[in-house]
Amino acid sequence: MSVTAASGFAAAGVAAGLKSTGKRDLAIVQNLGPLTAAATVFTTNRCKANPVLWSEQVMSDGVVSAIVLNSGGANCYTGSQGFQTTHATAEAVAERLGVSAGDVIVCSTGLIGDQLDLGKLTAGVRDAAAAIASGDAGSDDAGLAAAEAIMTTDTRAKQAAHVSPAGWTVGGMAKGAGMLAPGLATMLVVITTDAVLDSEQLDTALRRATRVTFDRLDSDGCMSTNDTVSLLASGTSGVVADLDEFTAALTAVCRSLAEQLQADAEGASHDIAIEVVNAFTEDEAVVVGRAVSRSNLFKAAIFGNDPNWGRVLAAVGTTDAVFDPYGIDVAINGVQVCTAGEPDQPRDLVDLAPRAVHVLIDLHAGDQTATILTNDLTHDYVHENSAYSS
Amino acid sequence: MSVTAASGFAAAGVAAGLKSTGKRDLAIVQNLGPLTAAATVFTTNRCKANPVLWSEQVMSDGVVSAIVLNSGGANCYTGSQGFQTTHATAEAVAERLGVSAGDVIVCSTGLIGDQLDLGKLTAGVRDAAAAIASGDAGSDDAGLAAAEAIMTTDTRAKQAAHVSPAGWTVGGMAKGAGMLAPGLATMLVVITTDAVLDSEQLDTALRRATRVTFDRLDSDGCMSTNDTVSLLASGTSGVVADLDEFTAALTAVCRSLAEQLQADAEGASHDIAIEVVNAFTEDEAVVVGRAVSRSNLFKAAIFGNDPNWGRVLAAVGTTDAVFDPYGIDVAINGVQVCTAGEPDQPRDLVDLAPRAVHVLIDLHAGDQTATILTNDLTHDYVHENSAYSS
Repeated sequence: MSVTAASGFAAAGVAAGLKSTGKRDLAIVQNLGPLTAAATVFTTNRCKANPVLWSEQVMSDGVVSAIVLNSGGANCYTGSQGFQTTHATAEAVAERLGVSAGDVIVCSTGLIGDQLDLGKLTAGVRDAAAAIASGDAGSDDAGLAAAEAIMTTDTRAKQAAHVSPAGWTVGGMAKGAGMLAPGLATMLVVITTDAVLDSEQLDTALRRATRVTFDRLDSDGCMSTNDTVSLLASGTSGVVADLDEFTAALTAVCRSLAEQLQADAEGASHDIAIEVVNAFTEDEAVVVGRAVSRSNLFKAAIFGNDPNWGRVLAAVGTTDAVFDPYGIDVAINGVQVCTAGEPDQPRDLVDLAPRAVHVLIDLHAGDQTATILTNDLTHDYVHENSAYSS
Repeated sequence: MSVTAASGFAAAGVAAGLKSTGKRDLAIVQNLGPLTAAATVFTTNRCKANPVLWSEQVMSDGVVSAIVLNSGGANCYTGSQGFQTTHATAEAVAERLGVSAGDVIVCSTGLIGDQLDLGKLTAGVRDAAAAIASGDAGSDDAGLAAAEAIMTTDTRAKQAAHVSPAGWTVGGMAKGAGMLAPGLATMLVVITTDAVLDSEQLDTALRRATRVTFDRLDSDGCMSTNDTVSLLASGTSGVVADLDEFTAALTAVCRSLAEQLQADAEGASHDIAIEVVNAFTEDEAVVVGRAVSRSNLFKAAIFGNDPNWGRVLAAVGTTDAVFDPYGIDVAINGVQVCTAGEPDQPRDLVDLAPRAVHVLIDLHAGDQTATILTNDLTHDYVHENSAYSS
């Protein structure tokens, strides 16, 4: 069900004392081979955390033997000391697992601007490596422990898997409950497969998959400094995967994880799908959907179960997509409240009691479509994010 | 103190029954001449309300005899019936005041998608015209009544004035408590002057003034469909104003009104000034400041009195301005919490108890600067905007 669903991978999640709660906070995922091919997408934020700066160097040759991930601190804007902490963590993993530090990706998540405790990290690495050596590290339980160790404000571990009739498997885990915005990435995600694919093919598949999944999830418009999506191939199945079929399976796994992230977004009471149809280009459909997903007024209205479609159009109007402002239709949860820029069905007919909300925007400007996933703006969102670091 | 501070103007504010509360909801400002020169800036939102579509036509010749403004409904996305309502309102004003309908600007504010009651509007126009005819319409009281009539969720009327030693005066009123974002405009504003200036000069001065005032106020990132800033000149003083001096006075009036709008933003508990210094260009300083002003995570942290400077840098990093991501300094309320991308003074030293918050971002990339005004993201913001139309 998780990063251990595909054969050739070992995982562990342990409590290293980085989280004040004493819960699991350090995970290792090891690729046991025979292949060690990998691809990644990192945040497009220019203020990148030290683990991202390190991992970008690791990816220069497309080889990854292991990934170490910690919650309890982002190790971002922590200067040269912080970079040394990341480097030393990779060295500790390399020593314990008998691999090269230059093949170890590091991911961190938590508060920006605080130094991580290197002693706790290396002790955690020791414990996680011991768990991997114990022999049970390919189990579902081990995968779940790793998924739990990367949780921050997440209330649930996020896992997904897809088994291909061709004989290979894709599985993954994700963490993220806020700061979900297209970057790429916007969260920590590790995906594994036992299919036979080289790093170039993995890169192609990963970019295709993330473009239409994680990159269309925009919970609160904020982009993290630490986001990393990694895809590792062990080749254990011995089956050379068809790239299109693999991309489709990978996309399904990414979509499942993205939907789990949306469903667990901080403080949200509605999961909103903004579907833009008949756009002139797909990019314009994305731009329009994203503009609506970033309207605090629209998102607060949905929280209040108020189908305030004027706020949808006010957000659409801020974009430069091709459309006639007075030729747009809007439907909310199946009720067409606006036709060609005029009121249609009464807004009272819209039932916003369910958690799932569907906003359909027809631009009548072409034949392209895109769906952006977002959440409502709630009291709990404000509460969680006003008290996070204190 | 208001639109009646300059000579040659009459104002009135009456209750027309458009607001369910029974409060004042319709205002007229008449330019008594001898000049009827005017300039306006409208929302850049492409989904423009009917009053904006009408008023853009009125402005084709730069002549405005009167402005009629109503709260209680935006008359946006109300189709041809809505446009007819706007047209008929202008005709009613023209008939009552003895001017041309083509010289009457109409402004509306309130919920999008509902038709306005034309009968109430025309009765309100009748009453307001009668008040103007009564002879007291140039008083401070008349100006205040007009300023009150355009309030929606505003808790206070907003007025400002500047008297020049050269013998002319600028005065104005504004409404706006949410949906304040650069557009231009982002609110309803009427400014009057008795200086002698033609419409081209007024346009130059108004664009210069709004660019550094209303256009740098970004309360919640949302842009209205109805925003209009109007500047009317009566020439009554007989003094030909120096354009630079006039622009400076106009800018001071606009800045005062912008600060009043910020101070009254819906649900806000902090007024935040984001000052970006040493940017490569002024535009980049604006882009960086605006990115921070639109970060819900940053705004929620300020609500929680949490000087979470990592969220400042995470927002800065989403822009493509010129800077070294590891060469940025951040100070909050005078405490330098980040120097060259590393933690400096402890965040606990920052006192966020006062309503005024100053965030100083030094990009070390040039010598340009800009300040963006915004507010925090609060429970009350969510509450007000989740219940507005119901």
